[in-house]
Amino acid sequence: MAKKIRLGILGGGGDSLIGVLHRVASFINDNYEIVGGVFNPIWDENIGFAEEIGLPTSRIYIDFDTLVDEELKLPENERMQVISILTPNFLHFPMAKKLIDSGFHVICEKPMTTTYDEAKILQASLEKSQTVFALTHTYTGYPMVRQMREMIREGVLGKIHKVDAQYYQGWINTLIHDLEKRKTTWRLNPEKSGASCCVGDIGVHAFNLIEFTTGLEVKSVLADFNYLYADNKMDIDATMLVRFSENTKGVVRSSQIATGEENALSIAVYGEKGGIRWEQENPNYLYILSDDKPLQVYKPGHAYNSPLSLDGTKLPPGHPEGIFDSMANIYKGVAKAVRGEEYNSGEFPTMNDGVRGMDFIEKTIESNSKGNVWVEMEN
Amino acid sequence: MAKKIRLGILGGGGDSLIGVLHRVASFINDNYEIVGGVFNPIWDENIGFAEEIGLPTSRIYIDFDTLVDEELKLPENERMQVISILTPNFLHFPMAKKLIDSGFHVICEKPMTTTYDEAKILQASLEKSQTVFALTHTYTGYPMVRQMREMIREGVLGKIHKVDAQYYQGWINTLIHDLEKRKTTWRLNPEKSGASCCVGDIGVHAFNLIEFTTGLEVKSVLADFNYLYADNKMDIDATMLVRFSENTKGVVRSSQIATGEENALSIAVYGEKGGIRWEQENPNYLYILSDDKPLQVYKPGHAYNSPLSLDGTKLPPGHPEGIFDSMANIYKGVAKAVRGEEYNSGEFPTMNDGVRGMDFIEKTIESNSKGNVWVEMEN
Amino acid sequence: MAKKIRLGILGGGGDSLIGVLHRVASFINDNYEIVGGVFNPIWDENIGFAEEIGLPTSRIYIDFDTLVDEELKLPENERMQVISILTPNFLHFPMAKKLIDSGFHVICEKPMTTTYDEAKILQASLEKSQTVFALTHTYTGYPMVRQMREMIREGVLGKIHKVDAQYYQGWINTLIHDLEKRKTTWRLNPEKSGASCCVGDIGVHAFNLIEFTTGLEVKSVLADFNYLYADNKMDIDATMLVRFSENTKGVVRSSQIATGEENALSIAVYGEKGGIRWEQENPNYLYILSDDKPLQVYKPGHAYNSPLSLDGTKLPPGHPEGIFDSMANIYKGVAKAVRGEEYNSGEFPTMNDGVRGMDFIEKTIESNSKGNVWVEMEN
Amino acid sequence: MAKKIRLGILGGGGDSLIGVLHRVASFINDNYEIVGGVFNPIWDENIGFAEEIGLPTSRIYIDFDTLVDEELKLPENERMQVISILTPNFLHFPMAKKLIDSGFHVICEKPMTTTYDEAKILQASLEKSQTVFALTHTYTGYPMVRQMREMIREGVLGKIHKVDAQYYQGWINTLIHDLEKRKTTWRLNPEKSGASCCVGDIGVHAFNLIEFTTGLEVKSVLADFNYLYADNKMDIDATMLVRFSENTKGVVRSSQIATGEENALSIAVYGEKGGIRWEQENPNYLYILSDDKPLQVYKPGHAYNSPLSLDGTKLPPGHPEGIFDSMANIYKGVAKAVRGEEYNSGEFPTMNDGVRGMDFIEKTIESNSKGNVWVEMEN
Repeated sequence: MAKKIRLGILGGGGDSLIGVLHRVASFINDNYEIVGGVFNPIWDENIGFAEEIGLPTSRIYIDFDTLVDEELKLPENERMQVISILTPNFLHFPMAKKLIDSGFHVICEKPMTTTYDEAKILQASLEKSQTVFALTHTYTGYPMVRQMREMIREGVLGKIHKVDAQYYQGWINTLIHDLEKRKTTWRLNPEKSGASCCVGDIGVHAFNLIEFTTGLEVKSVLADFNYLYADNKMDIDATMLVRFSENTKGVVRSSQIATGEENALSIAVYGEKGGIRWEQENPNYLYILSDDKPLQVYKPGHAYNSPLSLDGTKLPPGHPEGIFDSMANIYKGVAKAVRGEEYNSGEFPTMNDGVRGMDFIEKTIESNSKGNVWVEMEN
Repeated sequence: MAKKIRLGILGGGGDSLIGVLHRVASFINDNYEIVGGVFNPIWDENIGFAEEIGLPTSRIYIDFDTLVDEELKLPENERMQVISILTPNFLHFPMAKKLIDSGFHVICEKPMTTTYDEAKILQASLEKSQTVFALTHTYTGYPMVRQMREMIREGVLGKIHKVDAQYYQGWINTLIHDLEKRKTTWRLNPEKSGASCCVGDIGVHAFNLIEFTTGLEVKSVLADFNYLYADNKMDIDATMLVRFSENTKGVVRSSQIATGEENALSIAVYGEKGGIRWEQENPNYLYILSDDKPLQVYKPGHAYNSPLSLDGTKLPPGHPEGIFDSMANIYKGVAKAVRGEEYNSGEFPTMNDGVRGMDFIEKTIESNSKGNVWVEMEN
Repeated sequence: MAKKIRLGILGGGGDSLIGVLHRVASFINDNYEIVGGVFNPIWDENIGFAEEIGLPTSRIYIDFDTLVDEELKLPENERMQVISILTPNFLHFPMAKKLIDSGFHVICEKPMTTTYDEAKILQASLEKSQTVFALTHTYTGYPMVRQMREMIREGVLGKIHKVDAQYYQGWINTLIHDLEKRKTTWRLNPEKSGASCCVGDIGVHAFNLIEFTTGLEVKSVLADFNYLYADNKMDIDATMLVRFSENTKGVVRSSQIATGEENALSIAVYGEKGGIRWEQENPNYLYILSDDKPLQVYKPGHAYNSPLSLDGTKLPPGHPEGIFDSMANIYKGVAKAVRGEEYNSGEFPTMNDGVRGMDFIEKTIESNSKGNVWVEMEN
Repeated sequence: MAKKIRLGILGGGGDSLIGVLHRVASFINDNYEIVGGVFNPIWDENIGFAEEIGLPTSRIYIDFDTLVDEELKLPENERMQVISILTPNFLHFPMAKKLIDSGFHVICEKPMTTTYDEAKILQASLEKSQTVFALTHTYTGYPMVRQMREMIREGVLGKIHKVDAQYYQGWINTLIHDLEKRKTTWRLNPEKSGASCCVGDIGVHAFNLIEFTTGLEVKSVLADFNYLYADNKMDIDATMLVRFSENTKGVVRSSQIATGEENALSIAVYGEKGGIRWEQENPNYLYILSDDKPLQVYKPGHAYNSPLSLDGTKLPPGHPEGIFDSMANIYKGVAKAVRGEEYNSGEFPTMNDGVRGMDFIEKTIESNSKGNVWVEMEN
């Protein structure tokens, strides 16, 4: 029998989309109870939002440091167990570090930090601690992404020869052509958003999806960015050649000026024995290709799926679950880890995913700035 | 500022799928707090389940009548406001009736009752009360179903000439050919499941989807059932010709022996100015057809959608929401009604939908048993 | 080594679409040489068209009877071997009869005749002759329709329980609402088009597709027509309940007022062991469904297909072939039959398909006019 | 009134797939009559094939030079007008050159030559002649590719920012892992196939599709090849970064080891005002994306299409045409040019496409061999 895990939330107040996503995800499998947090640096909005969503206000704190201080004063069986970090990007690192060092479990939004160095520091902290750390590469929670991972592990593709991942959106097209909007959009401001826009925001998801599903590691990268306007220094389109080993290569394509595309993340992996394709916008279909057999389409909830995949489906086949359910699966995995239950390493992305991602972002920037040359990733 | 609505739940304990669906739906928009209920007639399972999902156990009651008695003793500002009925079908009517008569708001699973007569009685009760009543034809909560309804209301199709709705599943194929399974499956037992299996369980969803989206009313029906085995009294496949008016006709196709189909509910409506198609298994696409223009594909979350549709989407385009989100939209609509806020009549199915549905079920049975003749529906 | 078969063509001149379709189909597999015909009753247009398409004009005849007379005077090794009938519907029967009686092989457009009685007469003629007769239910020539037929024959579905075929078009919507157009459209004139518009033109294709792919025979039918306007005597929308045996039932849906639909012919067949679906507008995909295995998608040209299917594909997988290729497959089958080579009974529709189709049309009219009652088909 | 154009064919005998494709294409629009050719260097097979496909054998020649000599002796109104070159790659250049110099019109299979230098020589020859020259980049003949070209020309996308083209096949996976097969497959033999396998065979189609549809020219390219085995010198997978101008970039992805892919050529183009996508395996759908309007799906044959697109469709919407029809459209365009009729520059690919393609192939090889550096294309 499982008592609910006490969850605190940092950020995600008001109309925040990421706030809704995490809150709902925490509810979905009856594992968590939100006991407090800091939704907003402005007190009135902070407390107002807590009331609006019907939370008791006793553990809504004035700021992050107060939250840590006050929670640590509480007995362990009342104290927040897991804290979700949904604040602006530059705050992820200091908050995560302090929380880990203070013994809280952490669910952290992406990007984990703003630099690779910070990521390494965070990793070192985690290694000295006993806490659970999850990075919300949300897309890894989809049942068919999990199925893809398990099938590749089982050897369905044999040796992998080629990987192609895409993450195309079009929303920056609606503002990039206007000088004023270019200047004022926070995503295009390196101080607020980090050194990369397109790779940092979405390209890294595609990168992570590759490593998550294939178990391969990118060894080197060659990146080509597009900026469209000379006064905008942030990549809004980026194509990356990647290499895994001598004869295993790939391409990661990301864009925020793919006009009319919504959230077109997809992946295709080809190996000696077959191919697999998946698309985020139709997440409940997994395509298995072969040289000589009919195309197979796997769908969630069927007994033919792996335990890891089935663990992420709540209803019978044909009842579409979506991105809230995907994020909920990550929260579910974290709940198991926090409770010391057994879980599969694919149930949530980890610190290592965060470190790899930050390395990838920095290496693509380096490659592009040096004139599209190959840059080795750290190992 | 909105305090959470106090929700009680009847049934839906243990591994109940419908239980998960309602619980999650109640959480999704931060409107409800589950304060108690009766999850199971067996006390240990009832209380055990409440503990398992982390609920306080003080308002977990031994049975339905006790729940009503005890809650009515509580001051109004502590009493359960909305009660969701997820019990076996034959209990829907007596529970709903008593709750309505006692002044509780009700969210009732489908089928609303086991007979049309019961439905009329319930309707009469509701008319004398001040309570909100919602029937969970879950599929009406999808943003693109809502968009379909609004576009038809706006006249996008002009006068409607033809309606075609389908609800195909294959699960009964896995048991119908085994005599023992035929005898022991509750869905095939009229005493437990009601007088109809296929129409009662799924055909009525297709029927409701037609009336919900088009605003038309079926006037008469001619039904042809299939049973496969002489010892099986319950329809497991049913095709219905339907008429709306002199020159507006349609067909409702339902089957539980469409082997390999999962949950293939779909609808197509054709009128003088255009056509519209929607499919439940890919719920985030709405197809608008015309004589002379390119096919248009509407997707959720875009500003071009109606307010009713947009009200049902939480994230930007390209982030797939699914059936939990659809049910959550119904709960959201009920919350508005309970709070006395303005809402659109399409936000949740009503008593009238339940009465219409029970009439449809009984008339299809009558038509089939009389040799596939036309039977008029009540008006 | 195969000398080209001498082909004559009746009708199909000018901008005739059916003319292009047959001409191209005859060319595609290098089997036929068009040696003459009567393209048009008006001599100038007849001879002009022959010149336009680069035919020698020596065997362009002034009318059908002259063609027969003159060709019969030629030595057998010069005489037309196969004659394709593409004339208006009411001419199909007299032409086919005379050609069969005169010893020509015949490829006849659909509908084969205007009445069932004519069809029986034609059948009797054929039985006394040595000629090959093919009816161009074009859709049976698609490789994946052929594959469907073969898989069902092999028992992939086990006993069939349910059949659902659809043929939806929208083109009549563009004229039916205008009184003048209703009066002047030849399809809506029984004298020119036969007693049925929707069933005769397209419903019968869906019916044929069922019998062709399943090997089942419809035993009885209950039809419901729509006319939209009281002054219109021709069905423009028709839904048919069909029965094959005690426990095998189906539905045939056809419409010409499904606004915005182009040529939406599709079929789904469900049996004890699985289901199969196919759609004409995406003809190179065949969907195999099962209770417990992933959906399989068969595509043309792969070695896993049946010989009958592979015989209908010219290029490797992924090179889409279309409706011209489908018709060409029928012509290819006829060529084999004419040359006395072995062929599969699925290579072209036969006299029996024509007789069955005319019976179906007449029985649906009878059912509808008697108030939607069951009518037995001839056996 | 149009007399048929006298067509000769070089190569394409026996089971040649390309032979069928061209022959059928020449028939489809009634423009050509095959009067002779050289189908095979072995006389028995050459003449045997002519007889098999029912051709008169009087103008089947023993070899190419004889064909040219003998045809030139014929009076101009009997002489072959157009000659199609379907021979092995290394013969394209010498044959095309001699034919052009001799005044024949030429339809040439791809690759046009084996080197860029040859291509320039051929171009010079053509410039001095009066002949029509067409290169069969077959995919440009699809109605929806033509529609894409016309819409981009009309400005539907505004300024283009991003282009992504893909051509994935999997067939080499079936043989590349076997040393013996690697050695004996002609495609992997530079002497028979040219210096590149993947780019030369399919990558160049994707490149051509970009330039054909967008009207843009690639200025520079950076290529990364994969070989899988050290003993294989031929690229079997190649990803190319391409640049059109300062801020317009793209990626061309080609592979023959994308296991299970059939013929997955696709293109996406994104600009300031919208996006367009097309896929060869479903060629009758063209997707128009925008920031704020529903996705539009264009299909062939509708009046809303451009004249260039409509010129390539023979039947009404919903009657799928395929790759034979696409090639036939190229032959149709050539017929117009040969007859001196007006035609649109998009009706067939030209010498310039061939020169550009050969340049692209050579520059990708150079880029890859130099370590994936940028290489400028000729202008």
